[in-house]
Amino acid sequence: MPSSPFQIRPLFDADWPATWAVVEPAFRRGDTYPYPRDITSEAAYEIWVAGAAKTFVAEDKTGTILGTYYLKPNQPGQGSHVCNCGYIVANSARGMGVASQMCEHSQQEARQDGYRAMQFNFVVSTNAAAVRLWEKLGFNIVGTLPEAFHHPEKGYVDAYVMHKKLVNSQWTVRDQRGRQWLPFRFSSLAKSLSDLLRH
Amino acid sequence: MPSSPFQIRPLFDADWPATWAVVEPAFRRGDTYPYPRDITSEAAYEIWVAGAAKTFVAEDKTGTILGTYYLKPNQPGQGSHVCNCGYIVANSARGMGVASQMCEHSQQEARQDGYRAMQFNFVVSTNAAAVRLWEKLGFNIVGTLPEAFHHPEKGYVDAYVMHKKLVNSQWTVRDQRGRQWLPFRFSSLAKSLSDLLRH
Repeated sequence: MPSSPFQIRPLFDADWPATWAVVEPAFRRGDTYPYPRDITSEAAYEIWVAGAAKTFVAEDKTGTILGTYYLKPNQPGQGSHVCNCGYIVANSARGMGVASQMCEHSQQEARQDGYRAMQFNFVVSTNAAAVRLWEKLGFNIVGTLPEAFHHPEKGYVDAYVMHKKLVNSQWTVRDQRGRQWLPFRFSSLAKSLSDLLRH
Repeated sequence: MPSSPFQIRPLFDADWPATWAVVEPAFRRGDTYPYPRDITSEAAYEIWVAGAAKTFVAEDKTGTILGTYYLKPNQPGQGSHVCNCGYIVANSARGMGVASQMCEHSQQEARQDGYRAMQFNFVVSTNAAAVRLWEKLGFNIVGTLPEAFHHPEKGYVDAYVMHKKLVNSQWTVRDQRGRQWLPFRFSSLAKSLSDLLRH
């Protein structure tokens, strides 16, 4: 794989039209995400940006948006230590490693924000390239939802729940309120160190 | 088990205060649902009523609310043929079969509304009574989410994804747009017939 000719940075509201141009074809195709295929830009913004904790874009040197992902807690309250992400790559940017690098980036972000694991709730089983990529990046299939996705061409197909631990349980230290903090501090330290070395 | 001294009926807005009195202790305990333990009545209403397709209550002959459940699509669009439910029984009504009858009732409602399956996304593994009951009622564990729930006393514990098919795939007939309709018609017919026989 060539060295990445793109950077990953937070999405700003002004990026939405260009980001929607990446998201729209995926939602219209309707073979990877369960959102209504006739979803509007506004409803997609609610899901992808407003309803997420953070949204990022991958952009090339000319400022063209090649991909986007969101990061959010997968559950509220007692489930909020596990995050959830969704990724979309522009059709024109396939094969450049955009999904892979966005996923690695999201794991860094998630560790930094103190999440203990990342879970994908609904990976369509017929999306073999995605399943293969997530497995390569350390995710395991922890659940199979029978016929949970109504594929526009293939009919009712299974969806997978995929999962990756982001912290080594052995490192975990909890404070008196039961919150774990060592991996958080450790990853912040590691990031500060890595930022320092980069300058 | 004695014959049920309660009925299950739709929740009306006027029922919310009495329903909240059933829901609140479960959310405050925080050992079965992941909602923030300090959740307000208003936020709980949003989740349990406003955010659901339907909400029901079980009430005894004096009008006391013994339990409640919600029913909603588990995913939008291409995942909306699978429903999700949540059930809560009042502490004072344990052992009366309220959860069991609410679950059977929800399956009837779901079939009638055309859902093909029911999925529970987050059954806390330490909630052994619930896991046992759902298994008895035909649900299978189709996924295990490692340490996904932060139990107030037990720390990080697994959560299960549980699933039950509501239609027999053999009966399924799809129209040209790929929608299945026979089980829906069949269950409506069965319900009309059963309503008829009751009168």
